[in-house]
Amino acid sequence: MAVTDAALCAPFAPLVVRIIAEAQVIDDRIIKIDHFLNHRIDAVLMQAIGAELARRVAPFMPDLVLTAEASGIPPALTTALALGVPLVYAKKYAPLTELPAYSRIVPSPTRGGDYRLAVARAVLPADARVVLIDDFLANGGTAAALAEIIAEAGARLVAAGFVVEKTFQRGRERLAIHGPPPVAVLAQVARLAGGRVVMAATAQR
Amino acid sequence: MAVTDAALCAPFAPLVVRIIAEAQVIDDRIIKIDHFLNHRIDAVLMQAIGAELARRVAPFMPDLVLTAEASGIPPALTTALALGVPLVYAKKYAPLTELPAYSRIVPSPTRGGDYRLAVARAVLPADARVVLIDDFLANGGTAAALAEIIAEAGARLVAAGFVVEKTFQRGRERLAIHGPPPVAVLAQVARLAGGRVVMAATAQR
Repeated sequence: MAVTDAALCAPFAPLVVRIIAEAQVIDDRIIKIDHFLNHRIDAVLMQAIGAELARRVAPFMPDLVLTAEASGIPPALTTALALGVPLVYAKKYAPLTELPAYSRIVPSPTRGGDYRLAVARAVLPADARVVLIDDFLANGGTAAALAEIIAEAGARLVAAGFVVEKTFQRGRERLAIHGPPPVAVLAQVARLAGGRVVMAATAQR
Repeated sequence: MAVTDAALCAPFAPLVVRIIAEAQVIDDRIIKIDHFLNHRIDAVLMQAIGAELARRVAPFMPDLVLTAEASGIPPALTTALALGVPLVYAKKYAPLTELPAYSRIVPSPTRGGDYRLAVARAVLPADARVVLIDDFLANGGTAAALAEIIAEAGARLVAAGFVVEKTFQRGRERLAIHGPPPVAVLAQVARLAGGRVVMAATAQR
């Protein structure tokens, strides 16, 4: 593969500078950047994020972007716009809902409670070359559920892209269960310590 | 006001032709266009929808787009991109959750059950000129809740924009409770009959 992991996960400066300057560190596992990445969206930055994710995953020739509602939708939509392909977002339902669809139950550590992620069969064709996009790769619960849904549909997960990866959690391992896809990340957080964000690139210096 | 209601609600041809050709009429109140408007998103069409909504609401000089997760996010984000302003989306929580935020309980006729829509105080400033954007204006429950949140924040609802309005429901009346904002709509569905969608423009001929 000509695309190296270092290139796929190089720090994206317009994002990294804002995380370092503006992220609120809630505890040693949770950072809040919801005033520009989710809840409130800086539209110009989100367009740049989508363009950069698209540039990094384009070599894997995806023809569909898949994400989960709700916070995955902004980066997934701007990535889909830059790639010129459709976007499918998995919908959330109560865990007990039975649906005529591909679905998986996902635990929600930040909001509490489990939920069911579902994708209608009609919108995920068996021949699709799917790129999975989400705002965060943390414990990998959502990503693993989407990867299983892609596999169940008979489609192919050709790459994954995340705006922020918390490398100290085990998301990448869980995503790799179904064959490790190439993973693009724009900002890798190595740890949260003393109210500060330590980026992976900084930590490696 | 120089902007007429007819201009604000003129049929947007690229959308209307697809609704007429592809919408599934579930019963006399529900249409499904989730293979290009929500669930699966035609990114190119969604960008055109955002550009058109932005063009229609721009005269009211909004400086913030407000919507509700999840299906409001795609048209709201492309509208925000075209306007060059930030997007805030209200988050959904269980009705009983108490939050340090502006919030309202909204009934959900399509998915069942009530939920709480919430906007953190920090992302909705009192001097904001807000345009409310959503995919559907149907019974107006979401729109009315967002209008109340805007009023509670001391911000100003300068206009609203919807991709599709079901004019046979009472959404516009409920939205007008807090002073009727100018409303832009790209496709007005007058009724659903015999498995067919009847557009308002067609009905008026």
